[in-house]
Amino acid sequence: MGMLEQIKEPNDIKKIKPDSYDSLAEEIRSFLLEHVSQSGGHLASNLGVVELTMALHLAMDFPKDKLIFDVGHQSYTHKILTGRKEQFDTLRQLDGMSGFPKTHESSCDTFNTGHSSTSISAALGIAKARDIKGTKEKIVAVIGDGALTGGMAFEALNNMANLKSNCVIVLNDNEMSISENVGAMSKYLSDVRVGKAYNEFKVGVEKTLRKIPKVGDNLAKTVKRSKDSIKQLFVPGMFFEDMGITYVGPIDGHDIEGMVETFQDAFLLERPILVHVMTKKGKGYRYAEKYPSHFHGVEPFEIESGKSKAAKKQPSYTGVFAKKMLDYGEKYPNLVAITAAMPDGTGLQKFKEAFPERFFDVGIAEEHAVTFAAGMAAAGMKPVVAIYSSFLQRAYDQILHDVCLQNLPVVFAVDRSGLVGADGETHQGIFDTAYLNSIPNLTVLAPKNKPEMKAMLDFAMEFQAPIAIKYPRGEASLVLAEQTQKIRYGKGEVIEQGREVAILSVGNMMDIALYVTELLKEKGVKPTLVNVRFIKPYDKELLMELRKEHSLIVTLEESVHQGSFGQSVNSFYMEQGIEVKVQNFDLKDQFIEQGKVDELRNRYGLESHQITDEILNRMKDGKKDE
Amino acid sequence: MGMLEQIKEPNDIKKIKPDSYDSLAEEIRSFLLEHVSQSGGHLASNLGVVELTMALHLAMDFPKDKLIFDVGHQSYTHKILTGRKEQFDTLRQLDGMSGFPKTHESSCDTFNTGHSSTSISAALGIAKARDIKGTKEKIVAVIGDGALTGGMAFEALNNMANLKSNCVIVLNDNEMSISENVGAMSKYLSDVRVGKAYNEFKVGVEKTLRKIPKVGDNLAKTVKRSKDSIKQLFVPGMFFEDMGITYVGPIDGHDIEGMVETFQDAFLLERPILVHVMTKKGKGYRYAEKYPSHFHGVEPFEIESGKSKAAKKQPSYTGVFAKKMLDYGEKYPNLVAITAAMPDGTGLQKFKEAFPERFFDVGIAEEHAVTFAAGMAAAGMKPVVAIYSSFLQRAYDQILHDVCLQNLPVVFAVDRSGLVGADGETHQGIFDTAYLNSIPNLTVLAPKNKPEMKAMLDFAMEFQAPIAIKYPRGEASLVLAEQTQKIRYGKGEVIEQGREVAILSVGNMMDIALYVTELLKEKGVKPTLVNVRFIKPYDKELLMELRKEHSLIVTLEESVHQGSFGQSVNSFYMEQGIEVKVQNFDLKDQFIEQGKVDELRNRYGLESHQITDEILNRMKDGKKDE
Repeated sequence: MGMLEQIKEPNDIKKIKPDSYDSLAEEIRSFLLEHVSQSGGHLASNLGVVELTMALHLAMDFPKDKLIFDVGHQSYTHKILTGRKEQFDTLRQLDGMSGFPKTHESSCDTFNTGHSSTSISAALGIAKARDIKGTKEKIVAVIGDGALTGGMAFEALNNMANLKSNCVIVLNDNEMSISENVGAMSKYLSDVRVGKAYNEFKVGVEKTLRKIPKVGDNLAKTVKRSKDSIKQLFVPGMFFEDMGITYVGPIDGHDIEGMVETFQDAFLLERPILVHVMTKKGKGYRYAEKYPSHFHGVEPFEIESGKSKAAKKQPSYTGVFAKKMLDYGEKYPNLVAITAAMPDGTGLQKFKEAFPERFFDVGIAEEHAVTFAAGMAAAGMKPVVAIYSSFLQRAYDQILHDVCLQNLPVVFAVDRSGLVGADGETHQGIFDTAYLNSIPNLTVLAPKNKPEMKAMLDFAMEFQAPIAIKYPRGEASLVLAEQTQKIRYGKGEVIEQGREVAILSVGNMMDIALYVTELLKEKGVKPTLVNVRFIKPYDKELLMELRKEHSLIVTLEESVHQGSFGQSVNSFYMEQGIEVKVQNFDLKDQFIEQGKVDELRNRYGLESHQITDEILNRMKDGKKDE
Repeated sequence: MGMLEQIKEPNDIKKIKPDSYDSLAEEIRSFLLEHVSQSGGHLASNLGVVELTMALHLAMDFPKDKLIFDVGHQSYTHKILTGRKEQFDTLRQLDGMSGFPKTHESSCDTFNTGHSSTSISAALGIAKARDIKGTKEKIVAVIGDGALTGGMAFEALNNMANLKSNCVIVLNDNEMSISENVGAMSKYLSDVRVGKAYNEFKVGVEKTLRKIPKVGDNLAKTVKRSKDSIKQLFVPGMFFEDMGITYVGPIDGHDIEGMVETFQDAFLLERPILVHVMTKKGKGYRYAEKYPSHFHGVEPFEIESGKSKAAKKQPSYTGVFAKKMLDYGEKYPNLVAITAAMPDGTGLQKFKEAFPERFFDVGIAEEHAVTFAAGMAAAGMKPVVAIYSSFLQRAYDQILHDVCLQNLPVVFAVDRSGLVGADGETHQGIFDTAYLNSIPNLTVLAPKNKPEMKAMLDFAMEFQAPIAIKYPRGEASLVLAEQTQKIRYGKGEVIEQGREVAILSVGNMMDIALYVTELLKEKGVKPTLVNVRFIKPYDKELLMELRKEHSLIVTLEESVHQGSFGQSVNSFYMEQGIEVKVQNFDLKDQFIEQGKVDELRNRYGLESHQITDEILNRMKDGKKDE
């Protein structure tokens, strides 16, 4: 355990002797395994890029040179090598070290990432800036083969061809994104990996050429003349060459010295260059090698057995969705399910197995996923598109322009809505109400608990227009499980009739709302409790009704304030000229950092005691006014 | 003029004899020229695809078969051939025929388009639906070479490879999008067009092979064995073949019979196929051939001279922006300007000419444009990204995740904000306030007139965080031109101090607001008039101030209501528990169809008399309450 101790700050790795690289890699792997097994986090992807990251650090000079990790969850080794080893004790915790690159953590982090397929765009921007400034730093983007299916990576490649200076794209090819990779690019890379074109040519044509005395020379000359054609024969990665990017590879992503040499050569070229590196996801930990998808992002686990340490939980909303989709597959022959590279995460894996011909994983391609669904709906299918809230942001225009403008009956299953916890600000699902609320023709729902999730899905399946159901990460709540009323279009659900204060709770805030109700009762206030259900269209009739017996209307939701349900309520009463007090509990106008959901609620005033106190204060204020 | 008269309904073209195809094409061109010169509309792209559309109609059967036009402004000939000839008198007018495909107009329009690069996704969805249903209709997407730079087109190609049935992509290659085309894809297609690889091989290698007696045969056999390699030599369009799409072409897009034959062959293949068709934008009208970018979308013009019939106008906001950017280019050495295939439309052409090394046209690639800008900003540049409001919808996630989360000083010049008129619902810039308002760290401004546009740009250039300035299509208003106060962060501008009613006008609504003010004065009400300026952060201090002397606060804006400035105001007063009446004039929760801006304002209650009457009514209501 001596190597890792020598790594205290950036570039320290250069003091390590080449014959100790493998030991260092091993130590880093043990370190990662030890820490991630305790804290949870991204494991398989980080284990895969230990040598790659070491090679980059050996070939680059930090913080002068710029390294951008696509998505960024594979940056743990980079963090170790840039003096953040000690901070792994706080990995992904409130106020601790992020699991993603963060410019505020280190000057060696160049650009924050989190969503997929942004790195080439950012790297190209940084490269152009460098050229304008006339400086000389090296610039590298590391992008996975999965992220390469994202359209904006292609947009960036298309734009990159005219770069007359150096910029290196490292294609980290582990033959998968989070789950198994899909599509033409994946197949193409697989052909390149086995060196199909190249080998066939070598074995076939070259041998024959050599057999021909004298004439063979002639042919060789011709071959040289028609170099554009010949390049297609000799060079694998012609796809990238066609895009104007010089291709090198594929090379072994676990051979440090080989990579260092290749990177050093690559940095000498005055043009964009793609180095195709083969890595193994989960490398060095047998369970992660065998189940890389499971060990992509994990809860704390036992290293020995690979088993999760977390207690057995109630089914998640995702699980409820997964199960319902199986039923619908039988019931609705026109049902199709679409995911953007998340068959496991969204719970569609079982649907895939049961109805392979009606399941579509389009790759990391949220925009295409939504318009593809629109095409299906236009042709009479009933598409269900399951995408995480923060990733669906990428398809805002497609939801608006392709689905809702044509009023097509697409169901959006918006998973990971609300606070998600440890992944932090790039992954919090706190903008969905805002962006979905702004789209005409769209209906937006949020369930309070497991039975209601089912009922809403049933409702959506029969609904003949665009509809989104947003539900959070984690266990499906069982509060009020016995009490779910029938879903009626545009109608909220009154859980408890009281007076003076009415609490309007959106989706998963019902757990909190129930506590608040109890706490208020202890203080002698018996509030009315409403489950909002329909964020859009919201229940105007109910709002009119509530104002009669209530002087204070409270809204509770895990969304930014702008465009929220609370804002709809405020606006409605204001437009109607109704004098009533409204108090909105939400996440204001800010990004929310990593931390446990409860911790974050506490920090941002969404904890039940805080809410109760605020309500009581507001009631006092109201009384003073009178 | 006999051919066109015979075209009354779908498939009528099949009655035309092949030797009359050219005459029909000529008649269609005359028809298009005559109508578009009177009504305005998209000309060059439509003139380019007359023969292509005819060939598709000869090879397909409408409405059974499905044709999807990417963007859709090139669908005029399709409209003529599907019985909508008579409706050209109402082209792009209120309640008239749309300039884009509309499923409500004809069963021969399969999928509505407007934004770029959606057609392959939609076609693939329709093809998969067909296969699930077990029907046999033909499916064709027509996409331009410009639209092919859009990332979602690539996402769709990536996903298409696994289609085991027929779907034809027609690549309509006119060597440009709206302006000159850019990037690697463009260069690649240009290589394919001149048949570089193919010809070099033919001239070189084949000749040599033929020279070798006997051994030549051996080589030929080897060549056959290594067919994957050889395909790369013989087949142009290897890029698409690598994506799993069979490539055919390039073929002449003005040779009708040749195209019909190719399409008929293409329909026989049980797989996705791309037919590369070469067309000339503006074909048949010399001014449009010479200036295709100018004649992309035109106002009414004289056919003889090509000159616009429209009266000479005041400079547009775009023009003001264009001029200021030239100044900034000198003043700020770190300024860079970015457009997504719209150097003319956004007014950046002049900047491009003056500062070519600091100008970046990234192609039709809004997502990349924004993250590329973020990269530049992270490296110390000052990027100005100019994109139309409705197209910027596509970069919602990039603005949020790549720019604003890192609080990078990118300036967004949001052109065509508000109602745009004849292009209709896909192009109305009425969602920008909603989606921009939801993003933390972002400042959002709207100018009331030309001097303020300049002042806001000046302000943005010095501002060290993300900032968006939204401004409308058309002439820059000169109202109150003498009266522009200094821009102060987060502060509105009081134009006229009155009492009782305060009118808060956003951006270009100031013209209307001034009329309303006059009309109210005629009725004995002297309102306070405020220019909002800062939509986000809005001027809370001013709102607090206004409530003192005013019982009614009126907001005016050309945005959907959800997420609007008006909603911010409602919400603010409600949260503060302030009793004041607010009346919002906006576009509610709906898509807005085509029509002149004035007509649309009139239809949706944003005309000055309507607003005045509503205000007076509300004041009366208020009085009754008291």
